[in-house]
Amino acid sequence: MNADSVKELIAAAVRFRDERDWAQFHNPKELAISLAVESAELLQLMQWFRGPELARVIEEKHDHLTDELADVFFSVLLLADELKIDLGRSFIDKLAKTAAKYPVEKAKGSPKKYTEL
Amino acid sequence: MNADSVKELIAAAVRFRDERDWAQFHNPKELAISLAVESAELLQLMQWFRGPELARVIEEKHDHLTDELADVFFSVLLLADELKIDLGRSFIDKLAKTAAKYPVEKAKGSPKKYTEL
Amino acid sequence: MNADSVKELIAAAVRFRDERDWAQFHNPKELAISLAVESAELLQLMQWFRGPELARVIEEKHDHLTDELADVFFSVLLLADELKIDLGRSFIDKLAKTAAKYPVEKAKGSPKKYTEL
Amino acid sequence: MNADSVKELIAAAVRFRDERDWAQFHNPKELAISLAVESAELLQLMQWFRGPELARVIEEKHDHLTDELADVFFSVLLLADELKIDLGRSFIDKLAKTAAKYPVEKAKGSPKKYTEL
Repeated sequence: MNADSVKELIAAAVRFRDERDWAQFHNPKELAISLAVESAELLQLMQWFRGPELARVIEEKHDHLTDELADVFFSVLLLADELKIDLGRSFIDKLAKTAAKYPVEKAKGSPKKYTEL
Repeated sequence: MNADSVKELIAAAVRFRDERDWAQFHNPKELAISLAVESAELLQLMQWFRGPELARVIEEKHDHLTDELADVFFSVLLLADELKIDLGRSFIDKLAKTAAKYPVEKAKGSPKKYTEL
Repeated sequence: MNADSVKELIAAAVRFRDERDWAQFHNPKELAISLAVESAELLQLMQWFRGPELARVIEEKHDHLTDELADVFFSVLLLADELKIDLGRSFIDKLAKTAAKYPVEKAKGSPKKYTEL
Repeated sequence: MNADSVKELIAAAVRFRDERDWAQFHNPKELAISLAVESAELLQLMQWFRGPELARVIEEKHDHLTDELADVFFSVLLLADELKIDLGRSFIDKLAKTAAKYPVEKAKGSPKKYTEL
């Protein structure tokens, strides 16, 4: 399979789910819970650290971070399937909307929310 | 651009970030915070609802859900770039590992964690 | 000590922290990360379950749920200390504000957000 | 009422809920979702900032942070009621367990998880 194709990755996630008959547990709300839980697990790996210690932790735990990001991505792919969202296309669309909220000349170099720019 | 290519989507996310000079705020820890925050926003749309009301909410808020999922995906793509993770490949690898933890014959039709199967 | 006194519980949390010289890691942002992480752990215990199965899981995992809620409460107490918030008082104040957003006659029996009431 | 009494705060939260007939939406899973969502809102206020900018944001947004912490506390209090947990007592118990995992002589000045100490 082509690991660079969003559609093929979704198909792989769906196949994995269906082999286990898990669609019954996977409504969009449960998948959003899953996303929140997996995101927190990713974040937890870097909790309490900053500066050079954070950099070291990120290096040491690279495999673990990769695993957790893959778990997050799994939920994203299944949500796209469940909600019938064209993930790549909707991302490109959202980028255009976000560009309008954060025009380069105002947002450049600022961490502020668009409501505060 | 090809909206089905993970690599091209990452490139688009990175370009968006760099035009705004935002890489300085985007270490992996901040991106993981972002992921947790965006995931919670997605979940919030479905909070308190269940059954037929949940189904109705999901239909009514489809555009909003699509937007929030795109925000989540943005953080995922930037994290993959920041951590130099081949997102598609690592997902396929993780699927294989998860398959070993949840073999079809044991996991089929069960919502239990692998440690409890 | 009086386990019903918010102030005494905060004092106990602070003492625990200071004996370990952990204040250096505990700025409000890190504590908010901790809160998000611990909340996700609590939620994870009930992930994928609903209906009678959920009720059974909640009963079976009561001790674990209690533990996770205590972890969440720990972060809440330390945040109150760190931000110099009078936790009990601010809760009572917030309840009054929320009552104004969700007046009984409009909110009764509805799961909707106040912006949609 | 005594704003320092955990039990009285729980009673106030329950009264607020019951006046609105909201118990029907508030099973422990929904309350845990709520906790995750409110925690993320608190975290979001400090997102992208660090160092002196973070300190300034925390000062400027003190009222907003107080509000969000009160929302988190609301979910904690309702969960304690729903799960019939003696919140203050279980916190003290958990502190003792955590002290065993993080003995002062090993944990002092370290941000590491107990499994890595």
